[in-house]
Amino acid sequence: MSDGVIRMAMVGGGPGSFIGPVHRMAAELDGRIRLVAGAFSRDEGRSRTAAEGYGIDPSRAHGDYRRMLAAEAARPDGAQFVAIVTPNHLHFPVAKAALEAGFHVLSDKPATATLEEAESLARVVAATGRLYGLTYTYTGYALVREARALVRRGDLGAVRKVVVEYSQGWMSDAVEKTDNVQAAWRADPARSGLGGCIGDIGVHAFNAAEFVSGLAVTRLNADLNSVVPGRRLDDDCNILLRFNDTVPGVLVASQVAAGDRNGLRLRVYGEKGGLDWCHERPDVLTLNWLDRPTQTLHAAAPYLGPAGRGPARLPTGHPEGFIEAFANIYRDFAGAISHGCLTGGGLSGTVVPTIQDGVRGMAFVARAVAANGTGWVDL
Amino acid sequence: MSDGVIRMAMVGGGPGSFIGPVHRMAAELDGRIRLVAGAFSRDEGRSRTAAEGYGIDPSRAHGDYRRMLAAEAARPDGAQFVAIVTPNHLHFPVAKAALEAGFHVLSDKPATATLEEAESLARVVAATGRLYGLTYTYTGYALVREARALVRRGDLGAVRKVVVEYSQGWMSDAVEKTDNVQAAWRADPARSGLGGCIGDIGVHAFNAAEFVSGLAVTRLNADLNSVVPGRRLDDDCNILLRFNDTVPGVLVASQVAAGDRNGLRLRVYGEKGGLDWCHERPDVLTLNWLDRPTQTLHAAAPYLGPAGRGPARLPTGHPEGFIEAFANIYRDFAGAISHGCLTGGGLSGTVVPTIQDGVRGMAFVARAVAANGTGWVDL
Amino acid sequence: MSDGVIRMAMVGGGPGSFIGPVHRMAAELDGRIRLVAGAFSRDEGRSRTAAEGYGIDPSRAHGDYRRMLAAEAARPDGAQFVAIVTPNHLHFPVAKAALEAGFHVLSDKPATATLEEAESLARVVAATGRLYGLTYTYTGYALVREARALVRRGDLGAVRKVVVEYSQGWMSDAVEKTDNVQAAWRADPARSGLGGCIGDIGVHAFNAAEFVSGLAVTRLNADLNSVVPGRRLDDDCNILLRFNDTVPGVLVASQVAAGDRNGLRLRVYGEKGGLDWCHERPDVLTLNWLDRPTQTLHAAAPYLGPAGRGPARLPTGHPEGFIEAFANIYRDFAGAISHGCLTGGGLSGTVVPTIQDGVRGMAFVARAVAANGTGWVDL
Amino acid sequence: MSDGVIRMAMVGGGPGSFIGPVHRMAAELDGRIRLVAGAFSRDEGRSRTAAEGYGIDPSRAHGDYRRMLAAEAARPDGAQFVAIVTPNHLHFPVAKAALEAGFHVLSDKPATATLEEAESLARVVAATGRLYGLTYTYTGYALVREARALVRRGDLGAVRKVVVEYSQGWMSDAVEKTDNVQAAWRADPARSGLGGCIGDIGVHAFNAAEFVSGLAVTRLNADLNSVVPGRRLDDDCNILLRFNDTVPGVLVASQVAAGDRNGLRLRVYGEKGGLDWCHERPDVLTLNWLDRPTQTLHAAAPYLGPAGRGPARLPTGHPEGFIEAFANIYRDFAGAISHGCLTGGGLSGTVVPTIQDGVRGMAFVARAVAANGTGWVDL
Repeated sequence: MSDGVIRMAMVGGGPGSFIGPVHRMAAELDGRIRLVAGAFSRDEGRSRTAAEGYGIDPSRAHGDYRRMLAAEAARPDGAQFVAIVTPNHLHFPVAKAALEAGFHVLSDKPATATLEEAESLARVVAATGRLYGLTYTYTGYALVREARALVRRGDLGAVRKVVVEYSQGWMSDAVEKTDNVQAAWRADPARSGLGGCIGDIGVHAFNAAEFVSGLAVTRLNADLNSVVPGRRLDDDCNILLRFNDTVPGVLVASQVAAGDRNGLRLRVYGEKGGLDWCHERPDVLTLNWLDRPTQTLHAAAPYLGPAGRGPARLPTGHPEGFIEAFANIYRDFAGAISHGCLTGGGLSGTVVPTIQDGVRGMAFVARAVAANGTGWVDL
Repeated sequence: MSDGVIRMAMVGGGPGSFIGPVHRMAAELDGRIRLVAGAFSRDEGRSRTAAEGYGIDPSRAHGDYRRMLAAEAARPDGAQFVAIVTPNHLHFPVAKAALEAGFHVLSDKPATATLEEAESLARVVAATGRLYGLTYTYTGYALVREARALVRRGDLGAVRKVVVEYSQGWMSDAVEKTDNVQAAWRADPARSGLGGCIGDIGVHAFNAAEFVSGLAVTRLNADLNSVVPGRRLDDDCNILLRFNDTVPGVLVASQVAAGDRNGLRLRVYGEKGGLDWCHERPDVLTLNWLDRPTQTLHAAAPYLGPAGRGPARLPTGHPEGFIEAFANIYRDFAGAISHGCLTGGGLSGTVVPTIQDGVRGMAFVARAVAANGTGWVDL
Repeated sequence: MSDGVIRMAMVGGGPGSFIGPVHRMAAELDGRIRLVAGAFSRDEGRSRTAAEGYGIDPSRAHGDYRRMLAAEAARPDGAQFVAIVTPNHLHFPVAKAALEAGFHVLSDKPATATLEEAESLARVVAATGRLYGLTYTYTGYALVREARALVRRGDLGAVRKVVVEYSQGWMSDAVEKTDNVQAAWRADPARSGLGGCIGDIGVHAFNAAEFVSGLAVTRLNADLNSVVPGRRLDDDCNILLRFNDTVPGVLVASQVAAGDRNGLRLRVYGEKGGLDWCHERPDVLTLNWLDRPTQTLHAAAPYLGPAGRGPARLPTGHPEGFIEAFANIYRDFAGAISHGCLTGGGLSGTVVPTIQDGVRGMAFVARAVAANGTGWVDL
Repeated sequence: MSDGVIRMAMVGGGPGSFIGPVHRMAAELDGRIRLVAGAFSRDEGRSRTAAEGYGIDPSRAHGDYRRMLAAEAARPDGAQFVAIVTPNHLHFPVAKAALEAGFHVLSDKPATATLEEAESLARVVAATGRLYGLTYTYTGYALVREARALVRRGDLGAVRKVVVEYSQGWMSDAVEKTDNVQAAWRADPARSGLGGCIGDIGVHAFNAAEFVSGLAVTRLNADLNSVVPGRRLDDDCNILLRFNDTVPGVLVASQVAAGDRNGLRLRVYGEKGGLDWCHERPDVLTLNWLDRPTQTLHAAAPYLGPAGRGPARLPTGHPEGFIEAFANIYRDFAGAISHGCLTGGGLSGTVVPTIQDGVRGMAFVARAVAANGTGWVDL
């Protein structure tokens, strides 16, 4: 392993995990990061099995994440950062422990299970001075970054409206009562937190809207529903938004939009035109203009700005997907470990979502759940 | 002119009108209706000029619609129905006068400028026993009718969510202060009525949602905005809906979505799958299913049901558009005059929107405007 | 009927005809032309029935087209031009008779059933000095005209490659042996002419390619096949082309591309970029550029040039389709009768296809059929 | 490194290489293969630099591939297979040397620079008994595999027509005369072989057409052109095909289709319907049917067959792209090393393209180049 490679440990991602292998593939894709250790499962045997699957030394796999952190902290070649890929309720304790043990942390979203935890975690991040990033996947897509850059540059003029949707259908039946482990924890308040759909995917949409528009949601008016009988958390949410107190917005998310797959779509309208990005076809960004032809920007095209062009691994016309978007976040995070730490800049030279984004996301979820059905409230 | 042809008069649609010529083309497309008279403009000279443009006898063009109604009523070959294509504030008085003079009426939407007028008009329709239809254009599209039929048939299972959008960008600037006559009356409360965007296009979206879903909006939570400075009516509206007291819905409409053209899009989700129709490509209807491949239905295809197959003038693959959708409503209305009147069935054998749909639309506009920003209210 | 209206007679288009009613609707759409007479069927009774369906005076319907021409020529309010919508084998005799009787002619394609007839007809057109136009439908689409204009203007640089496809699937089975009258005459050499697929739709593709590229096919290398067993004419054709002796091209057409509907698609590539238009979505024109974002032009948008903007009846975002494309040709032809005849310019101020285009099309069909399978030949 | 991991060496892929890093990412994506050695560049220093970039031990990087093969063969933990990612002219000597040194080989396409080399290589493969696979990328896409499976299963009925396109625009200018190393070797007959466009991308299209249709091209009629002045190899090729002596086909490829990116598109038509797959959106497969609605199959959906479902790493709606398609081939190849070798089945349980596919590809290129412009010839 060359000196330039950053060493990673993982918590979560044991047998049956969907997102664990995605993190592993994304982390290692560019050859800058290597998974070396983990607490993949509470069950030590399962954790070792996972380690073998990931191609790492089983002796560096543990059942208890605290023991893993201690062991890695003690090694000269120990992990430098910890990726957290557990169900939501463990995000906070693991992140806190890792940061306090001196590790940087890159966590799956949402940051925590409650707003209070998120605020507490922000204090831990500040106190430890370690890097803390959140894998809001959609911020990793090249054209989402291009979109953000062009809004900031003023190409659209002042932003006037934001419409964001995240529509899935896979929980249209009571799949949490089958052997679907993904559904089981997401539909369980004890593991998922206060929000169901809103915490699982609504928060992605919220983050993407703020990330690209450059605006902050300041008011909301939430309609959360549990459509499938017997479901204890919301599985459908429709929320009116106000950005910066003035700009109207709408967030529409669902886990029961039967037939939909994974359609995050973001539209941001300004005075001069609007942008439209949809995860169904992530390698194009459409710009509709008031007075000239619609433009379609293609990923990796030479005319993109640095924000959109930079992440490309392949020439234009060679699609990069979900793993690559994740990998862009990992690459930036690893770069920040290599360089940002030396310069003291932390994540500031990157667009990697931070604990502040995490706090905002949890505040959004908490406020929407608390004020559901009551009309407009401040965020 | 053969005996089977229905004779039409028009009120409105003078020089500069966009929708007047559309009605004329649509009415005459199938050779079943002929425009024979009109009050195209208050200015008699302009009305005659319009008549020549429409290829009709200028002596049957009048400046005053009451005079036109009287003249046509007195002729043995006079008009049998009146098409109303004026700005909104004239819909009520013209319709009332025409019905009371014994004509059937096919009116552009919205039915009237206020809810009170609509309720009053419903009484006139009932009292006169004349046919009254509304050209909610989107109900004329073959695949919108197919969508309605398949929801009714239960193909999607019980409906769980409705998302409807109608997005335009042409009023992104203060075009009502230029010489744009279309914008001028739409942005003027005296001619447009209480609603701006909501009355002009939001009501189309509302109607399409109810038409296809077969459900009725019973509650709403409206956020109407005037985005362009100085505009007196709303130009952007985002509304949370509840259908039949239980089914969540969202309506998103705008006249200031810069770069958007005329994108009515309707999605209806049921237990088994969802349908998706978009005016940008009206000749396809997409059905996404929970557990089988997505289906795309093409207009005029032999596998469509009678509701969707019936309106086709051309073989599949030969696009029909906006004029043809309008013409479908005219054809149905003419058929009802020929047959529905004889049988006493009125419009009941058709899907032509009625005064009851008109009242619902006006109630929707009135309630949304009145309760704007106050959270949930009943409709 | 106002003085400005042009009077039309029709030959063909009797009961069961697909294209006759399309011509009637298209001709009358803009109120500038009115169908007043016809020889809709050889059977006089059927011809009169058709006349009633079209809403015209049955006394002006005839079984024999020569008698109809004579009768109309004798009336002061007789037809001014003749629309020919018969099967192919009658195009020539009807056009010749009509021209020689003093009528202008607007004929469905192909011009004739053989090249010799087309050349003969060109002489008749020249000798009579009457207007002769061909309804190559695709030349009527606004964005096809825009495409032609931008190529001529040099936006793409020198043209380097042309790919044109026209793919249908409706003859995948031996439908000509059923009661499908459309298929029956098309698959019958006596009525269709030498070409099957190539004469019916290949010639559309050929015309569209020359119309937009501004280049002329000078060599070809044809592969015509009869895929369905027992079919006597080709139902699939794939042809290598050379334009202006140097520019490569490909024409791919089929009537047995099972599942395809009516997909004419044209791509023209130049030094700087390529254009892409497809009949499946006729209201957009895509321009892909070597070094800048893809552009999508929308029909009726204000940024279009006069060629593309001119035909629009509706604001952008309101789809116009096949009938409207046809109507654009009719409108131009009527304009030429009104104005072109007075000025002596004939069709020169329009883009309506002429008898020269008709001769080219027939030469293409004849050459491809004769040289099928033999490699490159001159056109 | 766990026991289950397969060790790989690479030849080519040094600094500036596009495809080398793709192979490395693809190989390692699933954690089943690790790059351990290489001859990345003829220049030993550059080879070591590349090694560091790949995160491997620089002492296992060599300038001479023969020395690398010898060194790895001598190590107990040496590479088990060699990935060849050089320009085309080196494919043959490197593959031959590696096979003869006992390594399995996975080579980028085309197999060799000439047909004679390919035939010779086939003998070497047979003689050594080593596995030899070719990374025809498009065979790695899940939905291309699904397409192949459904054709084989007879879903479309007998295949009647095949249309395959591969359109790029990046060589529209004489980029080989700039510092574009990718263009430089591709446009140089000494390094690229006899074919330009046809050898670089036409062969991909050819392979995809045979792979999915299950048919073999038996005749062809080629039109190869060098559109850019001064270019020594073809940059545009249009070829009429005959599959199994009877089924018509067309192959259209270009490197000078200005504005196009990387659009391989394959359509296969059968008696009952046609399939359509396009690399611009690789995660959908469209099935158009003669008599029922169009179907769109989505990658990773549960209704796919094992061929299409198997490769999925992510739930449906999470796009996988070019790297993942490559990785599917690597994963299958690694599986064949682990299991196929033990069972003697070699690659027979996989769809990994073999040396026979390589020979066919080279025969196609050789025949098309030799018979260019002469009409139909046998393949």
